[in-house]
Amino acid sequence: MDMKNTLAGLEVGYDVPALPGMAEADIQTPCLILDLDALERNVRKLGEFVKAHGMRLRVHGKMHKSVDVAKLQIAIGGAVGVCCQKVSEAEAFVRGGIGDILVSNQVRDAMKIDRLARLPGLGAAVTVCVDDAANVGELSAAAVRHNATLGCLVELDCGMDRCGVATPEEVVALARAIDAAPGLTFEGVQAYHGAAQHIEDYAGRKAALDKAIALVKETAGALEAAGLKPPLVSGAGTGTFAFESGSGVYNELQCGSYAFMDADYGRIRDKDGKRLDETEWEHALFILTGVMSHPKPNRAICDAGLKAQSLDSGLPVVFGRDDVRYIRCSDEHGTIDDPTGALKVNDKLRLVPGHCDPTCNMHDWYVGVRDGRVETVWPVSARGKGY
Amino acid sequence: MDMKNTLAGLEVGYDVPALPGMAEADIQTPCLILDLDALERNVRKLGEFVKAHGMRLRVHGKMHKSVDVAKLQIAIGGAVGVCCQKVSEAEAFVRGGIGDILVSNQVRDAMKIDRLARLPGLGAAVTVCVDDAANVGELSAAAVRHNATLGCLVELDCGMDRCGVATPEEVVALARAIDAAPGLTFEGVQAYHGAAQHIEDYAGRKAALDKAIALVKETAGALEAAGLKPPLVSGAGTGTFAFESGSGVYNELQCGSYAFMDADYGRIRDKDGKRLDETEWEHALFILTGVMSHPKPNRAICDAGLKAQSLDSGLPVVFGRDDVRYIRCSDEHGTIDDPTGALKVNDKLRLVPGHCDPTCNMHDWYVGVRDGRVETVWPVSARGKGY
Repeated sequence: MDMKNTLAGLEVGYDVPALPGMAEADIQTPCLILDLDALERNVRKLGEFVKAHGMRLRVHGKMHKSVDVAKLQIAIGGAVGVCCQKVSEAEAFVRGGIGDILVSNQVRDAMKIDRLARLPGLGAAVTVCVDDAANVGELSAAAVRHNATLGCLVELDCGMDRCGVATPEEVVALARAIDAAPGLTFEGVQAYHGAAQHIEDYAGRKAALDKAIALVKETAGALEAAGLKPPLVSGAGTGTFAFESGSGVYNELQCGSYAFMDADYGRIRDKDGKRLDETEWEHALFILTGVMSHPKPNRAICDAGLKAQSLDSGLPVVFGRDDVRYIRCSDEHGTIDDPTGALKVNDKLRLVPGHCDPTCNMHDWYVGVRDGRVETVWPVSARGKGY
Repeated sequence: MDMKNTLAGLEVGYDVPALPGMAEADIQTPCLILDLDALERNVRKLGEFVKAHGMRLRVHGKMHKSVDVAKLQIAIGGAVGVCCQKVSEAEAFVRGGIGDILVSNQVRDAMKIDRLARLPGLGAAVTVCVDDAANVGELSAAAVRHNATLGCLVELDCGMDRCGVATPEEVVALARAIDAAPGLTFEGVQAYHGAAQHIEDYAGRKAALDKAIALVKETAGALEAAGLKPPLVSGAGTGTFAFESGSGVYNELQCGSYAFMDADYGRIRDKDGKRLDETEWEHALFILTGVMSHPKPNRAICDAGLKAQSLDSGLPVVFGRDDVRYIRCSDEHGTIDDPTGALKVNDKLRLVPGHCDPTCNMHDWYVGVRDGRVETVWPVSARGKGY
């Protein structure tokens, strides 16, 4: 126990939960840990898939918000760049050295548009989604003002019922406006079916994607007929990317969760009814938590509660243990059912969070572990960057 | 729109959502805003209550995690100090100049105990909760090692079914051990009934507290009989503090949410069946969000989703408007039902979050507004400090 260790002047405890070289048992909990071996296997595996299927992979940085993870995905995982949802995330990735960014979302506030249009000047190719003709003029004016070029994807609502226009005709009209606007280039179509990602059974996911792909094909055909063949048709996530890859119309994937995995994606079934975390992707992200009280023989209290994880997709699962179960949660505490009295104070558990994206956004650091030791500590670069 | 404004070198957008002097309409969304007038009224009101009732008020810093809000509560709201749940929160409050800190929780990890025992050396009176005899020795050794004194409250489980010992006899045994341990002082009893705070009807809350108070009285009596009269009996929250104040046995309150209020506490009823946010406390905390798409006539999409708020206590409520409703949420988006088409892109809404504590913990800044302008920007000092 050496409190004097520093990582660029940072102090274990107050500043960071761990430092490189520490034993896993000394990590200050709760915090996020990454199993670096599992992470690298996941990242390489999707890289091999996209290479074999002739797809581009633009990894979704909104999931991890980490410049370091994005660089790993580019270095060994076949990624051509990053997408994200917010201008402040794009700023963090560009400042971190990522050269190709898609903001897979609408940007409408005047100052946000101005901030977006400054990013090409920092050396990044920047693309953004559009679903409203008024936005074309706003983006164009900002691009011209900053002597920049912004790529634009027209967002098609292909089943998510959120942003995006609903018909091929509207996509063509927006594409024409973008194509004619100074400072903007028409880069293609954004068609992400977020709602389909978490449909547990394979047939249900396939049916949702069949419908989406039909609309996307019709849209791509209408664009081509209008002389605006889309360079990119981009979308897909960890639950559906095989469908988009085999569609013949999508050419870019936006997967995020595959790298870390979470309990909710783990429950999704493949064609043969097997869980995705048994057949496809390993859990690489965990909340490390410590037991801090054992007030009754069959109940332990751990130090990871609502402020360490998002519960929108259910409670976390205790990794690698059938004998104990995380059953309840308050702000700073988790209640563990321990029917056999297996746990004692200061025991550590690895929790698989229900939903990785909003969980990662609560933490400042990823502690990368390998062979029981801390190998690296990475900042969650765009944590809290929501604006 | 001046991007060059700086607050100690911080840039609007990437670093902070706003700067003092900005109009509310220019704040980068989503972010937390504080209605400073409402906040000050809430803070003064509880200060007057505790003065009138002869109680000590130790405000719960786990709610806001802000040194600035804590200092306001001490300056104008009658608070004697702060409580918090984590050593890293205590470190943030001590570094920020708060001189009296209770960690209202168990601290068991060796490095965390060491960190805790260093805090008195920085000039703060530090107290911690204990529910296990083994912890007494651990805390004592650390206090002696750092030539410090740590106050200890014995935690009694008075109905929350989480940490704490269950009987007066166990409390007395722990109090004896603390009293005999070098470097530790027995400061009294921690008896917080968290589960009772959110019982919606008055009679239900009263019944829960009647039971808790009876056990606390029995415990205080047993301690006095053992020659260990507790200097402090501490507990209570925004939902129940009137009961503890009238109990004749509690002498310190630990209220947190009263200062900001949230939608869940707002729904709680007083003796006359009236909502707490109509009779007792004003909503002072909001998530400011902007409309970023209006893809259908009756539906708007705003920029505050799961990463801007905790949904554990339900969806947020749109403040001051009956015509629109927040009905669904994804990571970065909120879906607003807008049956009359009242909203347009870039309109701003104030959302009252379901639960303030875990929502505040997602944000880096509080933007303090008064009369439509930004008056101050406060860091969420202990944000993410969970370890």
